Amino acid sequence: MSATATRIETVMQNLAERNLSQMLVCDPRSIQYLTGAYVEPGERFLGLILAKGAEPMLVLNELFTAPDDCTCTVRPYSDTDDPLALVAELCDADEALGCDKNLAARFLIPLMERGAAARFVLASDAVDDARALKDEAERAAMRAASHTNDAAMARFRELVHEGVTESEVAGQLEGIYRDLGAQGHSFTPIVSFGANAADPHHEPDNTRLAPGDVVLFDVGCRQDEYCADMTRTFFFGEPTNQQREVYETVRRANEAARALVKPGVRFCDLDRAARAVIEEAGYGPYFTHRLGHQIGLDVHEPGDVSATHNAPVEPGMCFSIEPGIYLPGNFGVRIEDLVLVTEEGCEVLNSYPRELTVL
Amino acid sequence: MSATATRIETVMQNLAERNLSQMLVCDPRSIQYLTGAYVEPGERFLGLILAKGAEPMLVLNELFTAPDDCTCTVRPYSDTDDPLALVAELCDADEALGCDKNLAARFLIPLMERGAAARFVLASDAVDDARALKDEAERAAMRAASHTNDAAMARFRELVHEGVTESEVAGQLEGIYRDLGAQGHSFTPIVSFGANAADPHHEPDNTRLAPGDVVLFDVGCRQDEYCADMTRTFFFGEPTNQQREVYETVRRANEAARALVKPGVRFCDLDRAARAVIEEAGYGPYFTHRLGHQIGLDVHEPGDVSATHNAPVEPGMCFSIEPGIYLPGNFGVRIEDLVLVTEEGCEVLNSYPRELTVL
Repeated sequence: MSATATRIETVMQNLAERNLSQMLVCDPRSIQYLTGAYVEPGERFLGLILAKGAEPMLVLNELFTAPDDCTCTVRPYSDTDDPLALVAELCDADEALGCDKNLAARFLIPLMERGAAARFVLASDAVDDARALKDEAERAAMRAASHTNDAAMARFRELVHEGVTESEVAGQLEGIYRDLGAQGHSFTPIVSFGANAADPHHEPDNTRLAPGDVVLFDVGCRQDEYCADMTRTFFFGEPTNQQREVYETVRRANEAARALVKPGVRFCDLDRAARAVIEEAGYGPYFTHRLGHQIGLDVHEPGDVSATHNAPVEPGMCFSIEPGIYLPGNFGVRIEDLVLVTEEGCEVLNSYPRELTVL
Repeated sequence: MSATATRIETVMQNLAERNLSQMLVCDPRSIQYLTGAYVEPGERFLGLILAKGAEPMLVLNELFTAPDDCTCTVRPYSDTDDPLALVAELCDADEALGCDKNLAARFLIPLMERGAAARFVLASDAVDDARALKDEAERAAMRAASHTNDAAMARFRELVHEGVTESEVAGQLEGIYRDLGAQGHSFTPIVSFGANAADPHHEPDNTRLAPGDVVLFDVGCRQDEYCADMTRTFFFGEPTNQQREVYETVRRANEAARALVKPGVRFCDLDRAARAVIEEAGYGPYFTHRLGHQIGLDVHEPGDVSATHNAPVEPGMCFSIEPGIYLPGNFGVRIEDLVLVTEEGCEVLNSYPRELTVL
């Protein structure tokens, strides 16, 4: 059985456990996971209909070509056709329809008005739960992408010199990733100097690097379709005592969480372990986000590493551990690694050093 | 009255014409248009609630900061809050709620189950119709972005030499845009060599440039938040007779459509004019897509330039004219410009030459 056939079987079982016999998947990465075909349809409709006892069917605008290794039957439509009529035709109107969590209202509301199904129920869990447990091929891809990310970080730090802007540095990263064999970025890179690093979602701008600044890279490549994601924070010049203390606190928080990862530990336990280190150092209020997120074909996959996620981690799960301390108007530090849960513990997918480094 | 207040007033009038008194806007660029605040919330909820007689309210995760010039009140929530409870609180449960066309099922289905409104109706037209008519500040921004795109194209063609890969060229474009004062790409650039240009949505890969190839750049920058989008097709070495004929046919199709643009002409008339030129030359079946799309804060805005869009163009509308001929396995040509409809006719926002050019 092909990898995609196995995955579809798992999803159909997950749906059956939720008393569902059919589902409309529209997330492009979920469709890639289940069929091998990656298409970004823009404003156009893209949907994979999974129905018990029927062949999976991909409703795809004819402008896009499914790759040769697409494992499912394609139902093409043109810009003058109504793709929702095709969907309604493929659905059983007397049964509930599981809906992708990302299904847009412009498709969902007309399907409801058309009575394409008896009820419309959120069912992405059925796919997301499957995607969360990486199979062997996916584990290898995750390792390789993070390996490239480690190699890239070693080159990114060389781009930094006094007076360079964040944008100038950010503009050079993609070329390095491609050089190293990746497809490009897995997300818009964050390059933050000095006080900008105190905003966890800062976008590179024309800020120029000055002595005494921290230099934060939150970067990832996509390679063979899978995502890397790593953060390192460097010092441009000797750190102050406070900078040193903050850095070491974050480093210990990252380490404390990583050391705990094994099957059975809960996501919230990991968040707690990292947060405890930061709270004990007196910086609790400045760690303003969850500890991490799952990752794979998407850079953010469902099931975050946070105080509110009580489920245990399982072998094959892959997620980030990324504690940070953000002192507004001053500076910020974040250290992020990806981990892959194994049968006994975990593999840390990033090996780029975490020791305090002065550039 | 501020620009954003004027825009919100227009949207409220558009809603009233549709018998709606409230709307949930969630498209990040629509929210930017109406409030000045651009936030990409990822998987988190972001919504602007517009309700008759009430202050517009932006429901925003506290991880994101609205810019200082955000003109509306922010209702922050944390990762442990339920933002949909806030939305339900701000909606009138006895009235219909206009919904953003991009509202995801993971938000829409729970709002329905919660009974947040009497009915849920697609209402993005009310915002999109306003966004389609660019005001003076927007027109200036559209001109400036395309001006930068023209300047960038002159540098992009210099990146091309025998043996270079599409990816290597693509990786250098963003730095040039930033150099010229843009924020970066407005969309993932298309750089296609030879037969790859016969796929209108080709993604840059490791194909190496060889003599006799066409070189197609479909590229755009984002500058001051507004998008440019232009395509030029060059020849790397002397074109064959067929290549020359195809190129001139596409150039004449582009010109025929541009020459017609003025208030009152219908979008479908423009598509027809360009398509007629291509059909007469015998290449009708190889022009496989619509003529163009509207553009502004988003690179693709609603209201396409196609055979099925019978509405007339109006002053302030901005869209692409991008005929193409695609000969599978052989080569493709596309020539694309942006036009801005004026009171009397149109301004063509791109001035980069369209004459057949051998690199």
